[in-house]
Amino acid sequence: MIKTYSSSDFQQLLSTEGQTSLQNDQAYTVAKEVIADIQRDKDKALDKYVEKFDRAVPDSYLVSEEERRQAWDLVDDKTIQALKRAAENIRTFHRKQLQESKFMQHDASIISGQLYRAIEKVGIYVPGGTATYPSSVLMNAIPAVLAGVEEVVMVSPARNGKSISPLLSVAADLAGVHAIYKIGGIQAIAALSYGTETIPSVDKIVGPGNAYVAAAKSLVYGDVGIDMIAGPSEVAIIADESADPRSVAADLIAQAEHDTKARSFLLTPSQNLIEKTKSELNIQLDTLPRASIAKQSLEDKGGLVLVKNLDEAFDLSNALAPEHLEVQLDNPLSYLGKIKHAGSIFLGHYTPESLGDYYAGPNHVLPTSGTAKFASGLSVDDFIKKSTFLYYTKEALQEASEDVIQIAEEEELSGHARAVSKRLTE
Amino acid sequence: MIKTYSSSDFQQLLSTEGQTSLQNDQAYTVAKEVIADIQRDKDKALDKYVEKFDRAVPDSYLVSEEERRQAWDLVDDKTIQALKRAAENIRTFHRKQLQESKFMQHDASIISGQLYRAIEKVGIYVPGGTATYPSSVLMNAIPAVLAGVEEVVMVSPARNGKSISPLLSVAADLAGVHAIYKIGGIQAIAALSYGTETIPSVDKIVGPGNAYVAAAKSLVYGDVGIDMIAGPSEVAIIADESADPRSVAADLIAQAEHDTKARSFLLTPSQNLIEKTKSELNIQLDTLPRASIAKQSLEDKGGLVLVKNLDEAFDLSNALAPEHLEVQLDNPLSYLGKIKHAGSIFLGHYTPESLGDYYAGPNHVLPTSGTAKFASGLSVDDFIKKSTFLYYTKEALQEASEDVIQIAEEEELSGHARAVSKRLTE
Repeated sequence: MIKTYSSSDFQQLLSTEGQTSLQNDQAYTVAKEVIADIQRDKDKALDKYVEKFDRAVPDSYLVSEEERRQAWDLVDDKTIQALKRAAENIRTFHRKQLQESKFMQHDASIISGQLYRAIEKVGIYVPGGTATYPSSVLMNAIPAVLAGVEEVVMVSPARNGKSISPLLSVAADLAGVHAIYKIGGIQAIAALSYGTETIPSVDKIVGPGNAYVAAAKSLVYGDVGIDMIAGPSEVAIIADESADPRSVAADLIAQAEHDTKARSFLLTPSQNLIEKTKSELNIQLDTLPRASIAKQSLEDKGGLVLVKNLDEAFDLSNALAPEHLEVQLDNPLSYLGKIKHAGSIFLGHYTPESLGDYYAGPNHVLPTSGTAKFASGLSVDDFIKKSTFLYYTKEALQEASEDVIQIAEEEELSGHARAVSKRLTE
Repeated sequence: MIKTYSSSDFQQLLSTEGQTSLQNDQAYTVAKEVIADIQRDKDKALDKYVEKFDRAVPDSYLVSEEERRQAWDLVDDKTIQALKRAAENIRTFHRKQLQESKFMQHDASIISGQLYRAIEKVGIYVPGGTATYPSSVLMNAIPAVLAGVEEVVMVSPARNGKSISPLLSVAADLAGVHAIYKIGGIQAIAALSYGTETIPSVDKIVGPGNAYVAAAKSLVYGDVGIDMIAGPSEVAIIADESADPRSVAADLIAQAEHDTKARSFLLTPSQNLIEKTKSELNIQLDTLPRASIAKQSLEDKGGLVLVKNLDEAFDLSNALAPEHLEVQLDNPLSYLGKIKHAGSIFLGHYTPESLGDYYAGPNHVLPTSGTAKFASGLSVDDFIKKSTFLYYTKEALQEASEDVIQIAEEEELSGHARAVSKRLTE
């Protein structure tokens, strides 16, 4: 059963928790070889690894227009409508993240500023495997399309060497993905990074993947951009007597059903809520399809933490810097000021994390494992780069020249000084 | 002497240039061990490595208030005034990058938005060695301080186990750095990442360093944030007959004097400018203090490229995605639209790169080696993290519920569906 902690025990747990080592040596070794081969032999090597890892090579890696059209007939209308509304909500939220190029200065003699430009080509990785996650397509592709990326390319492994899930294809259409290729794993990351005869290279790769995909992304980073290497998903719920134990338990379970390594915490000053949540967990787990995963996750990684008061709950949450933070309190917006670190915040009694995971608008690609202390969730900004610019007249340069030359000479870079003085002498 | 290229030869050069491998295996091996030791034994291990690599352990790692005061007497007033004005210009430029938290939606039933918060603790790495770069202190620390970082900690190795350069100390004061520690190398990155008894841990580390520092930063990435791993510096100059060959040559040399691996390119439709630039290079190199570095850099890595027309020059520059781009043309601002990828842009005949390197305001920490295709220069944004937030009323959740449940069930995550339905049933 899920463990209970006092606040000091929980603090202890956080401080002794080792840093997450994301390096998986075996995955790195394999990834290095596959990447080098595909960089050198392109499609020939790509075919070899698709055959080896996925067992069958599709007739064409590119999903045809025809296949994309047909996918719509294979998804029921209720799902299409739900995904359409989700896409619209996500678009509305992210559209507000768009920024315009701007001037910092525009005097008679000095003009400076910052240009915002979309990255030209982006690859979206979508895992294959048993379950399919159309929400992941929407969350990764919509901000890229909104940013103005000219070529949004999605990759996902074919099922049995044939097609990708129609759900993913429909989601890609809704998000505005320009091309889909039926490749996955390390070989997909390598092909997107360096290009092959059939797969175009991109400038940045985003999207979740297993340990091999993560290793491949780390290895190509620098040659292309990557989003982040995500760890297990996590939620912290801050609640008091105003919370419904059924909602608390349901949200802990929703987190736990992802993965046995997912982490789900309740932080509350109410012993009563802890007791009731415990019994609700038992009731709800009884009928959950993924109960065995959720149970193990709650037992190994979860925790019900009794805190002295709400301030202490927020302190502990800030120390954790959770990917998701739920504030199941009355007047939840008034607590925003107490939250220092959290990937995404869900406020009040009627805002379950799953509402945000799928639908409401904020992105579900979020910093995990405490990285919310320095990182942010995916946004339009991740598909934009900023170039600064500067223009000086001769008079402005004249006025700045003495200072610039002084600093350059102090740094012992005379060439830098001369680049100024040469312009001002006949 | 510097090579000349036709545009097609230059294109060939760019396409055959291998991807920059930033991995230096020896540096990684050393860094792994040092980091593990310091993570475990803290100050004890830190002392050991400072002794080993820097030869002498300072009495105190922390630079005292007294030392910071005294540094001001050791720097001449002209330099102090120049750095003051540089700091003010950098502050003015970067202040315009500050953003406010905002709402995406605030209906009667749904409130959502994005909180901007400064990272709490940031470490600035400043290399030691022969030359000192106060400009690097200003460029890295000022955006952090403006962002609102509570604890900006600077590290730089002590000279002979005693003190850091007074220039760096004064620059740190001007930038608003809260504490300075006399440590450098891998051991500084390790101490900042995991903390020791005397060195506080930080959430993100920025600043340039050698291959060992770069390896250490890559290894701690994930446990803390890092800025980027920079490659050799580079400039592309697009110029025509309106340009002064002396300015063109001076700017190529200013880039080349950094480092034998620095890359300096002129892209021009004027054969005449190429010839005149060549002879100017010879004249100016003759009297340059760092001529041997600059010469080798120009010879090995530089190039004068004859293009058919200016459009081709911009195309080649976009393929290069240079860290610095100079547009030495008349009406330079009218060319902004042609620039797709560049870290920082210098417009016109009186805007040498060195003006921006030190003084004008834009940041000099910029994406190198073509990474301007997906990355941006350092800015206030690098010290900010964004947390999204969401609030739904019961009615709003009710309205969304069918769609959310539908998508959750499609993804086979019933727990996610129940987190919604539990809230809406008695």
